[in-house]
Amino acid sequence: MSKAVIVASGGMDSATLAWHYASKGFDVSLVGFDYGQRHSKELEALESIASKLGGISRVITLDLSKHLHGSALTSESVEVPDGHYAMETMKATVVPNRNAIMLAIAAGVAVADKAEVVATGVHAGDHFIYPDCRPEFFVPFAEAIKNANKGFAVEGFRLEAPFITWSKADIAKHGSEIGVDYAITWSCYKGEEIHCGRCGTCVERIEAFILAGVQDPTQYADRDFALQQIGN
Amino acid sequence: MSKAVIVASGGMDSATLAWHYASKGFDVSLVGFDYGQRHSKELEALESIASKLGGISRVITLDLSKHLHGSALTSESVEVPDGHYAMETMKATVVPNRNAIMLAIAAGVAVADKAEVVATGVHAGDHFIYPDCRPEFFVPFAEAIKNANKGFAVEGFRLEAPFITWSKADIAKHGSEIGVDYAITWSCYKGEEIHCGRCGTCVERIEAFILAGVQDPTQYADRDFALQQIGN
Repeated sequence: MSKAVIVASGGMDSATLAWHYASKGFDVSLVGFDYGQRHSKELEALESIASKLGGISRVITLDLSKHLHGSALTSESVEVPDGHYAMETMKATVVPNRNAIMLAIAAGVAVADKAEVVATGVHAGDHFIYPDCRPEFFVPFAEAIKNANKGFAVEGFRLEAPFITWSKADIAKHGSEIGVDYAITWSCYKGEEIHCGRCGTCVERIEAFILAGVQDPTQYADRDFALQQIGN
Repeated sequence: MSKAVIVASGGMDSATLAWHYASKGFDVSLVGFDYGQRHSKELEALESIASKLGGISRVITLDLSKHLHGSALTSESVEVPDGHYAMETMKATVVPNRNAIMLAIAAGVAVADKAEVVATGVHAGDHFIYPDCRPEFFVPFAEAIKNANKGFAVEGFRLEAPFITWSKADIAKHGSEIGVDYAITWSCYKGEEIHCGRCGTCVERIEAFILAGVQDPTQYADRDFALQQIGN
């Protein structure tokens, strides 16, 4: 069976991506990263998703927090900002070069595992804030990684970003059609007991389900804040 | 002062690279990786080089050995092969996607540190064995990483591989002209007390000094083996 290595956070995008490849008949392997971020809840979600799909999950530890300083996701001295994801303040959540780092490592794992596909769940909603979610990054990067592993990777080895032109609502709609269990996914950047409903990913998650017309199984501490933000 | 982040192993290529940027007036920062390889001697060399240049060195730990299996550099069950570097058996020393992984992380460090340049010492002698040392990898990769960090990296941020068309002898010659102290560098893959003189990097190192007509300050356990291999 062909293998697909999924760069996964345990959130709704990567969960949908894992289901997407599993539904196409790939043997999926989820690769998550523990780079000192606060939301380790997402790493637990990773395992639940993998076990539900009969795949495997690996968590790779990167001791980057002391080197990639300045981001709210790895530094205790920077506050995780509340508000809508598409706001300038969300720039504080950027870990420098994060997608390139995760994709490069996942590609190494894929070559060692003889996997054909390495996939990322980046989507159009991320483009405004994260330059490493745009085709200007992904297209040359995919070419570079393919060339870097010639003669070592399996025939047909490639990087894919099937949602790169989709909105998050498109992802939720697709996910509901292929049976993704969103109750076991985790998005919140704050990593408390339940989703906060206030941080960028929570607001974006709530909005995506509403726009997609898909039932949201998530429990939020403050869903009203999100609804206000998105003008609902 | 402009900063350059050097992907460094402590060997002669990356030492020359560090001296190269220091001699151009850059404030150099050496980034090395401990990915479970046997030759941790190279990491000690890293510190010596940085301190000699008044720069800093960081060693980033990656727990990849259990994920990137099958390489002689990370697995105890695979023997490090003896012989000339340009032999098919040297393929056993490949860590899948290693250069992309190291460059991606170094670029993240560079963005956080507000460095202008991220540099790698890959050279033409590596091309035969390592596809991730070729321009077909490096050129699109450099473009991708530049695009990935737009708005976050300093103006003029870029990846450079100044030796990519050079032979290792060219590097040794250039190094001797700019005063590189090769006595403090470490190449040997076996990581014993002194350089073995038998492994691929030792043979290549000895050959480079001879071809460049530069005095080799290194002590080898079995230099004759290398001389035989290179027909000298």
